[in-house]
Order: sequence, then C-alpha cells, then structure tokens
Amino acid sequence: MEHGFIAWAKQRAMRLPKIKLGIGDDCALIESDGSDWVVTTDSLCEGTHFILAECGPQAVGKKLVGVNLSDLASMAARPVAVFLSLCLPRNSAEQIGAEIYEGVCKACQEYHVAIGGGDTNVWDGPLVVHLTAIGTAPKEGTWLRSGARPGDKIVVSGKLGGSLLGRHLDFEPRLRVAQRLHPLGIVQAATDISDGLGVDLLNITVASRCGAEVDLDKIPISDAAIHRAMTSGQTALEHAIGDGEDFELLLAVDPSKIDQMPESIDGVPLTVIGTFVSRTGLWSRSKGGVMQMQARGYVHG
Amino acid sequence: MEHGFIAWAKQRAMRLPKIKLGIGDDCALIESDGSDWVVTTDSLCEGTHFILAECGPQAVGKKLVGVNLSDLASMAARPVAVFLSLCLPRNSAEQIGAEIYEGVCKACQEYHVAIGGGDTNVWDGPLVVHLTAIGTAPKEGTWLRSGARPGDKIVVSGKLGGSLLGRHLDFEPRLRVAQRLHPLGIVQAATDISDGLGVDLLNITVASRCGAEVDLDKIPISDAAIHRAMTSGQTALEHAIGDGEDFELLLAVDPSKIDQMPESIDGVPLTVIGTFVSRTGLWSRSKGGVMQMQARGYVHG
Repeated sequence: MEHGFIAWAKQRAMRLPKIKLGIGDDCALIESDGSDWVVTTDSLCEGTHFILAECGPQAVGKKLVGVNLSDLASMAARPVAVFLSLCLPRNSAEQIGAEIYEGVCKACQEYHVAIGGGDTNVWDGPLVVHLTAIGTAPKEGTWLRSGARPGDKIVVSGKLGGSLLGRHLDFEPRLRVAQRLHPLGIVQAATDISDGLGVDLLNITVASRCGAEVDLDKIPISDAAIHRAMTSGQTALEHAIGDGEDFELLLAVDPSKIDQMPESIDGVPLTVIGTFVSRTGLWSRSKGGVMQMQARGYVHG
Repeated sequence: MEHGFIAWAKQRAMRLPKIKLGIGDDCALIESDGSDWVVTTDSLCEGTHFILAECGPQAVGKKLVGVNLSDLASMAARPVAVFLSLCLPRNSAEQIGAEIYEGVCKACQEYHVAIGGGDTNVWDGPLVVHLTAIGTAPKEGTWLRSGARPGDKIVVSGKLGGSLLGRHLDFEPRLRVAQRLHPLGIVQAATDISDGLGVDLLNITVASRCGAEVDLDKIPISDAAIHRAMTSGQTALEHAIGDGEDFELLLAVDPSKIDQMPESIDGVPLTVIGTFVSRTGLWSRSKGGVMQMQARGYVHG
C-alpha cells in the first residue's frame, strides 16, 4: 500500500506547517538557524523484516541502525543521534530488549553515533523495533531523489541481489562512500536501494521527471544472487534488479564529471550501469535492443 | 522493567558519542550551531495503551501526537515536526492507516506542527503506532527534571486522576501553558505527568537529588477520579496520585517568585501542592502529620 498511501498523505498534509523537505524523499530536511537537520524513521516487524528465532535480537538491533543510517547516507548526511523504541513480547522482554540494545550500541559505536533516548514497552504482541536517526546536512546541500537530469550516468555502489541469504542482516550503510563522494560535487541525485534496483530507480525517475535506460550487462551481480538463482526459478540478474534490502547507493552522476568518480571507495566498487534519459519509464538495453524494463525484476527471455 | 533498563542502557551507552542531554529526561537535547533541538519518541501498542475497537483509529492518532507534544511541553520546547511510523494489521490496513493519519493531521494542525515523514508497514501483528517529535529549545534554556532545589514549590497544572475514563485519549498537551510560563523565568524543573503524580514527582526528586513533601489536601482532584472512586475500591485522592496519563505539567517553582505565577493560564489552573525538601524521598503532609508517601498512590488511612 505504501506508494498510494504516501501520495495521499502528502496531499492531506498540505495545509499543515511546512518543513524544507517533507514526506517523500529518503529523509526529511528541517531548516535551522544553523546547519539543516536530516531525519529518517523506520520500523522493523517480526515476521516481515526478520525472523527473531533465526537471527537473534542483536542482529535485529544492528539491522535497525543500518537501515536508518543507509537513508542518511543516501542524502549525504552525517549521523548525530538515534532514538530507539521497543515493543517487546512479554515473554523474556528484558533479555530480548538488552540484546537488541547491545546490537544497536555496537552499530552506533562503529558509525560514531549517539543514542539520544527512546521508549520501551512490554506487550502481548510480537517484537517491533523502531528507530529515528537524526543527522546534519552538508552545508553545500544534500543529495535528493529529484536531481537527476537526462544524460546523467546511473551509478550503483557494491553488488546487488540475494540479500535474503543473510546480507539484509549484515550490510554496511554507505556513509563512508557518501562522505567521500559528496565533496567531489559530481552527484546530482541519490537514493539507497531498499526496495530493489528497479523500484528505487523508478523512484528517482519519477521524482526527477525523467526516465532511465539500464545496460543489463553492466549490473554488478552479487554472489548471493547467483547462489539464489540456483534454486529460486529466477535468474541472478532478476534477483539483482528485483530483490530489496541491498542498502547500496543508487546515484545520478554528472556525465561531464564522470572521470572524477573513483572506481571504488574503501573496496566498494562504483559501477556505471546506464544513463538517465528524457523518455519517462524504465528501459533496459541488451544485445536484443532496448525494451521496457520491469521494476520488479522480471527480464524478458 | 523500564527504570532498571534505562539505568543500564544509559551506562552501556557511556562510550558512544555524547549529545547535550541523552537518555533519562523527558526529551533529548541536541546541540547545534543554531538553536538546540529537542527530540522525543513514543510508541503506543494495541491492548496496552488503547483498545482499538473501543476508541477508533483517529483517537489513537490524536493521542500519539499528544503524548509526544506533552514531552516537548515539559521541556518548554516549541514543536516543529513529527515523524510517524505505523505497523498496521493486514486486515483493513489501509483504512486504519488513513484514519490514524487523519487524527495525527488534526492534532498537528491544532498545534502548528509539520508532519515531516514516516514509515508504513503492514504485518500480521496488532496495531503499533510510533511517533518522534522534534522541536527547538528556548534560547534561555530548557526545563529539566534535575533543576529542583529544596524550598522550591511543587506546582501542577490542571486536575489529576481518572484518566482511564477517557481523558487519556482526549487531553491537551500543555504547550501553551509552558510557552506562557517559560519567559517568566520562575520554573526550576519540570516533567509531565505520564506515569502518575507520585512516580513522576519521584523522578524529579531523584534527578534533582532532593525530596518532596506534598500537602494531600491541596492536590487538585479531577471529576473523573471522583467518579472512578465510586467503584474502584480506591479513594479519589489515590487515583489523583497513582493514575497515569494525566499529561499535566509538574513543576518546581522558585519560592521567591511564586507571586509571579498566574493562578491559571487559558483556563488551566496552576496549583501549589507542596514543597521540595532536602530530605530525600516522597512525604505527605495532612492533618495526621508527615508520613512517607507511596508513589503508586496508596494513602494510609
């Protein structure tokens, strides 16, 4: 339901006070008499985003921080503090709560973020964890989804697909990549790949009022996607396009400055996979020519 | 579990980066190159904080905003934006989500707050709603729990007790009272009454390293508390001390400036109910003399 709901919610909030950037991008942007603040919020629910019995509470805490910091990275923000809210199942609430917190602490330590506060509840439902992350925007301006122009190169960090095989619990929010790229002034638009390359690329094109043409041969495919394809009935390429929770950066890079983009940052490859175009929609280019591309990953044989 | 957990969580986060005021007060305080930012976060869970079938989704949205704005009020902060996160039961997710959002919108309109963004999830569990509210701190400094000194007057806004009879869903976060009182410079410490007068007064005394002596005769008792006492087996006074979710302000006021305190603000009475004292603990004063006071509301006969 999320897309339709967000559009409606944005409309409904029109008469309320405004902030610099509200509902619809990866994070919100709040103007201040000092640096602007960037805020993002995400919940993870037992059974939907994790299986507690399989991954354990610490991994949940780590994922929760990672998901939110990935949103901050996609706007080139610098994280300052996170706020944690827990709805803990009555049965062993204290132990689960403490272990989640431990996972949150370790992730915060790694990325130099404060834990600003939170809220703990014990209830009769399954585990829900919630985090709000707050950071500062770079003074030169944040990256938005809406900045891509026809001609810009489509760039992804890392390799894509197969996150369900474990990487969705153990990934690196691309803060360092963002903090190295932002000062170069070559990125026009950005998001992180949370819903899958196809869907998130579509989000950028819609926000930027353009289209995208992807060279299917150039998409960097993860080993996990190849591994999944052995049993899933989908190809590795389809996993790379359609699977969610890669938490890699998806960027629009100025073509006149593409030579300034490093091939990799701290071992994370940056790959040009296509070009933003004026014709709206998603398009794929391969040996067979240019065809309409399915955001969910299905590739015509 | 919350008190022990918070103490442990605070300890565990010691090695992480710090913010100006972290875990333990009503809100966190983040220093900025401009105004400081005040942040608070709260979840409401079906069955614990509301019964959806009884109150309906709009009331849940309204309460969610109110609870968080009450925290901002208790630090004399000015709300700027809220961030909403919903975990919606699969069965009629869209309708429930839209109605909660409507309740959130109405409350935001009333208090001139922006909806900055959020996150919607559909899952197989009961309804959980979550909000983070962000505001700016007054330049002259926020109210904290830790500022009470022996001799300060204990002051409450409104009337207390019996919130379960409906007021816990339909209360006024005391933003206007706070915004009128703050410039007078007479308040030394503050919190909002969410866990009950006794518990929240204890929180102030612990944070301020002092005690409190309450004149039982002075506690303003709500009609709802009197009503509840008819069937509950507790006295109205016990409800006023022990019931939670009043969302009134609990203040420490400088005794040398108590004459400057209005008797009421916008129809909301401000009542002196006792004095902070150097002897730690909670004490009650009545015709029978001074006795130890139970935070949970039980009053010796």
